[in-house]
Amino acid sequence: MDPEEFRAAGHELIDWIADYRARIPQLPVQARVKPGEVAGKLPGRAPEEAEPFGQVLADLDRIVVPGVTQVQHPRYFGWFPSNASLSSVLGDMAASGLGALSITWQSAPAVTEVEEVVLEWLRELTGLPESWRGVIQDTASTGSLVALLAARERATDYSETRGGLQAEAAPLTVYSTQHAHSSIGKAVALAGYGQDNLRLIEVDPVSYAMRAESLAAALEADAAAGLRPAAVVVTVGTTGTTAVDPLAQIIPLARRYGAWVHVDAAMAGSALLLPEMRWLADGVAGADSLTWNPHKWLGTVLDCSLLYVADPGHLIRVMSTNPSYLRSAVDGEVTQYKDWGIPLGRRFRALKLWFHLRLDGAEAIRARLRRDLENARWLAGQVSSAPGWRVLAPVNLQTVVLRHEPAGTVSGTGAVLDAGALNAHTLAWADSVNAAGTAMVTPSLLDGTWSVRVSIGAERTERPDVEELWKLLQQAAGSSLAQP
Amino acid sequence: MDPEEFRAAGHELIDWIADYRARIPQLPVQARVKPGEVAGKLPGRAPEEAEPFGQVLADLDRIVVPGVTQVQHPRYFGWFPSNASLSSVLGDMAASGLGALSITWQSAPAVTEVEEVVLEWLRELTGLPESWRGVIQDTASTGSLVALLAARERATDYSETRGGLQAEAAPLTVYSTQHAHSSIGKAVALAGYGQDNLRLIEVDPVSYAMRAESLAAALEADAAAGLRPAAVVVTVGTTGTTAVDPLAQIIPLARRYGAWVHVDAAMAGSALLLPEMRWLADGVAGADSLTWNPHKWLGTVLDCSLLYVADPGHLIRVMSTNPSYLRSAVDGEVTQYKDWGIPLGRRFRALKLWFHLRLDGAEAIRARLRRDLENARWLAGQVSSAPGWRVLAPVNLQTVVLRHEPAGTVSGTGAVLDAGALNAHTLAWADSVNAAGTAMVTPSLLDGTWSVRVSIGAERTERPDVEELWKLLQQAAGSSLAQP
Repeated sequence: MDPEEFRAAGHELIDWIADYRARIPQLPVQARVKPGEVAGKLPGRAPEEAEPFGQVLADLDRIVVPGVTQVQHPRYFGWFPSNASLSSVLGDMAASGLGALSITWQSAPAVTEVEEVVLEWLRELTGLPESWRGVIQDTASTGSLVALLAARERATDYSETRGGLQAEAAPLTVYSTQHAHSSIGKAVALAGYGQDNLRLIEVDPVSYAMRAESLAAALEADAAAGLRPAAVVVTVGTTGTTAVDPLAQIIPLARRYGAWVHVDAAMAGSALLLPEMRWLADGVAGADSLTWNPHKWLGTVLDCSLLYVADPGHLIRVMSTNPSYLRSAVDGEVTQYKDWGIPLGRRFRALKLWFHLRLDGAEAIRARLRRDLENARWLAGQVSSAPGWRVLAPVNLQTVVLRHEPAGTVSGTGAVLDAGALNAHTLAWADSVNAAGTAMVTPSLLDGTWSVRVSIGAERTERPDVEELWKLLQQAAGSSLAQP
Repeated sequence: MDPEEFRAAGHELIDWIADYRARIPQLPVQARVKPGEVAGKLPGRAPEEAEPFGQVLADLDRIVVPGVTQVQHPRYFGWFPSNASLSSVLGDMAASGLGALSITWQSAPAVTEVEEVVLEWLRELTGLPESWRGVIQDTASTGSLVALLAARERATDYSETRGGLQAEAAPLTVYSTQHAHSSIGKAVALAGYGQDNLRLIEVDPVSYAMRAESLAAALEADAAAGLRPAAVVVTVGTTGTTAVDPLAQIIPLARRYGAWVHVDAAMAGSALLLPEMRWLADGVAGADSLTWNPHKWLGTVLDCSLLYVADPGHLIRVMSTNPSYLRSAVDGEVTQYKDWGIPLGRRFRALKLWFHLRLDGAEAIRARLRRDLENARWLAGQVSSAPGWRVLAPVNLQTVVLRHEPAGTVSGTGAVLDAGALNAHTLAWADSVNAAGTAMVTPSLLDGTWSVRVSIGAERTERPDVEELWKLLQQAAGSSLAQP
């Protein structure tokens, strides 16, 4: 395709995207296709001849749009905000259009230096320590894996340069909670620590945050048994309930054993743009690494996750490679981001952050985050004061975890809901909200019982959307009870 | 930014991209900025207020374009082709514009199923075994790491579910060559094997391919010493010389010791679209995994790397997580790509492959690949027959590794070039080609001596561009010799 063909098709695509974004409020939030339905609409073999652009564009409407959950919908309250702000989309388009290759600084100095500058902007905006340096990763899953690899190598004095983890005498241990994101257990497994060496520290029964005294006891017991505490993963804003592990209490404990402190603030990191929310990360200056995702609540289109580290020199030593075909005269003077993560070739992801911050401006982004926090507080207030409804966890951020627990009897049967019936009730009314298509929430297990997470923060979600959701939840729960 | 503001800015950006692509032949190929120059043009803090789009767009011209090496230039012969075909750029734009979130099948069925279908198209196009299944990774570095993690877990019967690699009695070993990509050594280190357990098997002095008999001896010696061969990494098309390790000879050796066979065809995978090039992967049906990068020679814009595996069930067992908030009624019926790699959240990368294949068509892509192979053969022929010039490695693909080794004396001095002077001469003339800005090549060490890699295959490179390069190389080498 030559530039003039691209120009023609590109203009059509821009109009398609603008029209699509404008009509999202009319689409069902949750995708309704059945397994195999999308694949069934596609031919079994690649086309030998070029197809006209109009045909491909038509398939976006016919196949793709009905095949995705509309996470940009104003009444999407599902897993977590996954905002793809149109300002950041422009930056991502520019990155694709440029087609730059970043394998070393030399191959594309601007890819490296715009990333350095924008990550410094965001460091300052979030109040992270001045000496920290950041890098863009695809997701927090990768960022946390990189952090746990760095922790492993610090604990073993760079065992990777010798016999690896398999040559180590005493097992390394990692500490977190059962409320940590699934990626933490995965990173522990992939980094070779072994799941038996992951300690899930007790959480407070009300706040769901790690209990510092339980961590202290676990560290002491492991050290006494000859094990080596290598890392503590602290979650600031857990996925389930947005619980905040007490970083300031945890850090001195971890330090006593030389353990790396990694902060997973994937969701909550955006809140650090608000000075009044900085308490979330109290004590962070003593940590070793922190990951957070602008591709969630902040709204920089997926994938864009940040990893900040206190000691870049250590990270580089763990990750570096330097074959001759990548050497250049400026080595040592510049940042080589290939040595800050797993991939060698890197996409120009900084461009979407740069566009996003410049085209929206920090103040408007802060205003939107505050709007969402207020909406969550409003909903929590409504739920708390409604008979039969409960808010199940502190509303630290923009997520409300709730349940409908009717005090009376089940209509027509005379029975009070037992645990099984309550679970069935919860899943039934949540599913009916989602099936109706006008809003979406996520059922989630909390203390072994099903609850519903309402995660507020889609870019287009305004108060009337939250009011409408609250009506829908009440109607759905009422209808579910009314079913025999 | 609302959809109408996006529409206006988007049309401007499309024109910008089309104009930029059209004028690339007039730009210097290699970026000329100095360390810190790009960063120095950016403000130290994020903007509080929104900036007009025109200002951001102007900065693309002022700061970004001069700050990247133009790998889409028709006379870019550097590291490797990194084609960003405009058809694939459209698909990537659509992915960003959609802003879908893929964390499970349910969150965006189309992201999963288009990926499954397109990877099946490409499996068929490249002649890989019918039973294999594929997944998109960001880069081959990540794909090879995933493969070596899968190998580790197979060799240890899922040690990750117990005490990890640190609980294993006998060390695992991995086999490759010094010509393997730097990411292989990195993956060995990160996966915890330890660099001492990576065996760099001897290569043939002419073909630079792994010597099967040396591999056999190394495997036997390690097994006899009580070590456990876990993986053999076979490179099909090495970065340095496009050497092809003899897969068909290697597989039975690896199998004898139960070692995983991973094929790194990052660059050469595209050639498998040509039936006449399938010899590259002779024997591949016996391998366990293969990675190749459509974001290189094929031309699907970065990042887009494919990982195919013979046993997806094993990969899933190594990589899976299943927290309650990600469970759904269709689990078991659908593919959950989160369990095929490291990240949970996945970008809709399949869309750019889908657009690329449909808008260009397979036949045109094959014709372009054949054009590049012919251009490489033509250049190799010219170099071989020119006095003082040598082709240093077999031209298996689209890369010619060459050196100017003047037989006579250095002009004016009476001295024949010794090894040091030959290195200086090579680097001098290569640098002068790159500094002139009309073409770009990559110096690379081969057998300890500097050579120059000419990697042909930019989408816009036609025969006259290669002819022009050959003139430039001869002029530069002549001028360098003429310098006292």
